[in-house]
Amino acid sequence: MDEVTLGENVAAFARRRLRPRVLVDVSKLDTTTTLLGTPVALPIGIAPTAQHVLAHPDAECATASAAAAAGVLFCASTMSSRSMEDIGSTCSGPRWFQLYTQDGVGERTQQLVRRAEAAGYTAIVLTVDLAVSGRREREMRLAFALDRLETGNFVTLAPAIQDEAPPAFTWEVVDWLRRLTALPVVLKGVMTAEDATLAVEHGVPAVWVSNHGGRQLDRAQATIDVLEEIASAVAGRAEVYLDGGVRRGGDVATALALGARAVFVGRPVLYALAAGGEDGVSLALKLLGDEVRYNMALLGAPTIAAITRAHVTP
Amino acid sequence: MDEVTLGENVAAFARRRLRPRVLVDVSKLDTTTTLLGTPVALPIGIAPTAQHVLAHPDAECATASAAAAAGVLFCASTMSSRSMEDIGSTCSGPRWFQLYTQDGVGERTQQLVRRAEAAGYTAIVLTVDLAVSGRREREMRLAFALDRLETGNFVTLAPAIQDEAPPAFTWEVVDWLRRLTALPVVLKGVMTAEDATLAVEHGVPAVWVSNHGGRQLDRAQATIDVLEEIASAVAGRAEVYLDGGVRRGGDVATALALGARAVFVGRPVLYALAAGGEDGVSLALKLLGDEVRYNMALLGAPTIAAITRAHVTP
Amino acid sequence: MDEVTLGENVAAFARRRLRPRVLVDVSKLDTTTTLLGTPVALPIGIAPTAQHVLAHPDAECATASAAAAAGVLFCASTMSSRSMEDIGSTCSGPRWFQLYTQDGVGERTQQLVRRAEAAGYTAIVLTVDLAVSGRREREMRLAFALDRLETGNFVTLAPAIQDEAPPAFTWEVVDWLRRLTALPVVLKGVMTAEDATLAVEHGVPAVWVSNHGGRQLDRAQATIDVLEEIASAVAGRAEVYLDGGVRRGGDVATALALGARAVFVGRPVLYALAAGGEDGVSLALKLLGDEVRYNMALLGAPTIAAITRAHVTP
Amino acid sequence: MDEVTLGENVAAFARRRLRPRVLVDVSKLDTTTTLLGTPVALPIGIAPTAQHVLAHPDAECATASAAAAAGVLFCASTMSSRSMEDIGSTCSGPRWFQLYTQDGVGERTQQLVRRAEAAGYTAIVLTVDLAVSGRREREMRLAFALDRLETGNFVTLAPAIQDEAPPAFTWEVVDWLRRLTALPVVLKGVMTAEDATLAVEHGVPAVWVSNHGGRQLDRAQATIDVLEEIASAVAGRAEVYLDGGVRRGGDVATALALGARAVFVGRPVLYALAAGGEDGVSLALKLLGDEVRYNMALLGAPTIAAITRAHVTP
Repeated sequence: MDEVTLGENVAAFARRRLRPRVLVDVSKLDTTTTLLGTPVALPIGIAPTAQHVLAHPDAECATASAAAAAGVLFCASTMSSRSMEDIGSTCSGPRWFQLYTQDGVGERTQQLVRRAEAAGYTAIVLTVDLAVSGRREREMRLAFALDRLETGNFVTLAPAIQDEAPPAFTWEVVDWLRRLTALPVVLKGVMTAEDATLAVEHGVPAVWVSNHGGRQLDRAQATIDVLEEIASAVAGRAEVYLDGGVRRGGDVATALALGARAVFVGRPVLYALAAGGEDGVSLALKLLGDEVRYNMALLGAPTIAAITRAHVTP
Repeated sequence: MDEVTLGENVAAFARRRLRPRVLVDVSKLDTTTTLLGTPVALPIGIAPTAQHVLAHPDAECATASAAAAAGVLFCASTMSSRSMEDIGSTCSGPRWFQLYTQDGVGERTQQLVRRAEAAGYTAIVLTVDLAVSGRREREMRLAFALDRLETGNFVTLAPAIQDEAPPAFTWEVVDWLRRLTALPVVLKGVMTAEDATLAVEHGVPAVWVSNHGGRQLDRAQATIDVLEEIASAVAGRAEVYLDGGVRRGGDVATALALGARAVFVGRPVLYALAAGGEDGVSLALKLLGDEVRYNMALLGAPTIAAITRAHVTP
Repeated sequence: MDEVTLGENVAAFARRRLRPRVLVDVSKLDTTTTLLGTPVALPIGIAPTAQHVLAHPDAECATASAAAAAGVLFCASTMSSRSMEDIGSTCSGPRWFQLYTQDGVGERTQQLVRRAEAAGYTAIVLTVDLAVSGRREREMRLAFALDRLETGNFVTLAPAIQDEAPPAFTWEVVDWLRRLTALPVVLKGVMTAEDATLAVEHGVPAVWVSNHGGRQLDRAQATIDVLEEIASAVAGRAEVYLDGGVRRGGDVATALALGARAVFVGRPVLYALAAGGEDGVSLALKLLGDEVRYNMALLGAPTIAAITRAHVTP
Repeated sequence: MDEVTLGENVAAFARRRLRPRVLVDVSKLDTTTTLLGTPVALPIGIAPTAQHVLAHPDAECATASAAAAAGVLFCASTMSSRSMEDIGSTCSGPRWFQLYTQDGVGERTQQLVRRAEAAGYTAIVLTVDLAVSGRREREMRLAFALDRLETGNFVTLAPAIQDEAPPAFTWEVVDWLRRLTALPVVLKGVMTAEDATLAVEHGVPAVWVSNHGGRQLDRAQATIDVLEEIASAVAGRAEVYLDGGVRRGGDVATALALGARAVFVGRPVLYALAAGGEDGVSLALKLLGDEVRYNMALLGAPTIAAITRAHVTP
């Protein structure tokens, strides 16, 4: 559409103002945290994005390796260029699998989940904001078609997500998925307090605030602008993550102050991958880490837990 | 004047933010609704605009045919290029007649109403925001004069609206019109809660929020910005419509969330008519319908009635 | 300085939104009102500005004649190019005299007041916002000096206002002036509720909201933005006028809705004077009058008194 | 980073609006005040900035001489080009010494304090917002390195501040410093009510609101936007100063109205120093003084103490 939300995701962060505290001992900074119990070096993960081969021939292998080296969590997309098994054997760090259901609660969806379990993924991230595909007019004008590219997970299994909504993609799918697997199920794409409350009531251990990088419903709010209402609705009963518009360490600090446990980055990593392959992603993660530390030091927050609501203006 | 309101109508929609709900069953979308009891395929109608011949030689016949094919309501203007009888015989779909009073509550106005009844129009839309014609400086600079063009309804009857206010165009005209005809009378041009309340008290079944596409009082508020106060004043006692600035499916969803039963589009249809005649209008209506469905799916609203206040930020 | 207030005066009007009422009988519009009892054709007067000869060789004689022909009030400046006696004999309409005190409550100030009384001026408008002259950097850069020009009122009496504040220009000057003359004393340059209250307590019959066209204290609020607090403080105990930023009939309607009895225009008249002499000013006043009528008709306000707070958004 | 705060410091002043009072006796204006008991000619001091030699070969000697001549307070930086002893013997006016701790509460820090005492500095301004150095990407791109320049205070003593935080720079350092010296200790870099309260509780006589000219934590609020919360927290128990974005007399008046006792200027002085050496700084201070007087006259505030909260919009 008009890419309003795409721009808002970034702009909404830039409108926020920070409140630095002084004379706190920040001589030792600790940026580590845990995501569903998994220790990570930074409160930043790699968001699932399709087809890394569009950015670099090493594709997800490069991204995942850089993530592992940096100690950050990598989330592989159902629509990755490389298969989840390839990524799993390349990537030695923590990894989650993002799931697009294929035939609803059917066989094809089950296969993906079983393969993710077998390949060492420790959570299933169910994307819930793709009831239909967004109207991406830029892609229409460019005649861009994702389905012309190879998708590693579907060499023998054709994907079935484009433009074709699985019948009745509802909370029953969530319940079914939780029964199907022992892995924790994260809901990605929650944008309202109402749905966050439902997510908790359906027993999910983590809610992921996302508007699909502004690529689904245009004019949806910026993710950082809904974070607080969602964190308030969740009230500590689940972990809360956020993606969309995160470009700077100040964005990370802002999201954590407003209630996120971690943020995920998509485009910055893809740009870095395109610019420099694995080394590029490593540099992007190093810069983000440096910026997080700089923000923590000047906010007077020596640990992730020390970042509080009061570090951002009301 | 300065075309402030013209721009605001569009800008005010773009400022609104949507709140998408997820995991609702939207596998079947129903965009139908009724307008004063008439079933329509979309909550979108064609707003009355003068002189379609300026856009295309097929004029209102092209527009009305495309509307009929799409199952949407067509509202013919008193100042149409083709006569209401011609349009009526061409247009097989639902149609309303927009009325400019001519000689107040006199003979000439009566004739127009009687002809509309005879030609199968099922409602009279009385425009109430033209006490005097707007100061359209762009037209003055271009020396544009509407009265040089043929007006289908006035081959034997000269129009009498330009610059010459009918004596005492007041609520008594509304009462007189309601006594004159059995057709429902819609008031188009209501911009305040006060007038919406008066409209209901005078027994009209529908209030149409409009600022004449920004062409009457400059610096009037954007229509979407007054919708909520009007819907609140009407409180379900009449149907509420809106025109002005509707360009996207997201605008339609926003207006419905804030209390409109339907919206009407003027310029988008005229541009489409100019670009492609009847086919152009058909394409414009198809695109709008697609966008409405895309918004409903991603808002988690499978029916028109399911779109609620909570789908738009406060 | 930075001309912030200069721009704000205009921009603040453009930010206001109007609330049109419909189906009111506006077939007869009455734009007349009174200013301190003097009947005028429009709620618009000519603001005092120095040195009309800079715009046109006919100077104040052209402006005042056009004002008289249009039935609007002319306010002559102490710093006019022509003497107040010349203007008085040329101008057959209502006229006020704007006073800059010369030697405080001394002889030279008294002479000006006595001459104004003798020349038929019916009110003294005391400018109170020139404790010191504004820092007009544009003038400094242009090396513009007002004192090089002839000032009609000072052929035999040198002016003494530039950069040299009269000793203790305080409310005692107001009291002294009120005792000095039987003419009503209007205070021009009031920008706060506090000073408006003091003005009423000192018995002045009219408070003129002005920031000297943005030429005195830079970053002072726009006049339209302080009007409401001042009208509220005055509470009907004095008439309230406004100048600064009035360019359109919508500005006039806005100011009247927010509590002004009339507005005064400076720059629009000077531009018209420069462009066309007396005819130019006549055209400017005609256009403003037309726009006022157009606004009244579309606001549903057939008289000046019918324009109320509800015609502008809160 | 993105220099958001740098721009905001200036923009936030420009957003404020002044409320001029009239008919107050401003024939005599008194701009003098005291800072920690020291009489100064203006409520404006010279902020500590490093390396004046970058602007002019006369460096701090030129700046300090101009300050002395104007009767304004000069604050010398630890990182000055000339030594504090040189500046002290050149500068006959009031002077403060800005302190970057070197080895925490160790010997090297003590030496700086003792030298400042001996050289006639009457307060120690402890900078508290440099827990780590800001990420100044503009400097990175320019490969700018401050440490290549001579620093007058460290001819025999190497500086130790860049990138290397003193171990545990906490409130204990403040307490230690207060015990170390009889000079008053001013805390520079306070940006929250919380830290202002702590400062008062730790007995400091003055709190200096600063975000390091926007060069430390990017997206920190503009200083003028936090002044009011800080002044409110301090509640008269300490003096409050502000730097950041002060460019005009109106900025000074705004800061004083919102609770500052004085402001400090950095960049304006450096620009003036670069443009004209000591004469340039003298002119800058003269212009600022003229603007302060012009603002006081038109605000109706004949003394510094007469500037109150009501002179700025809420």
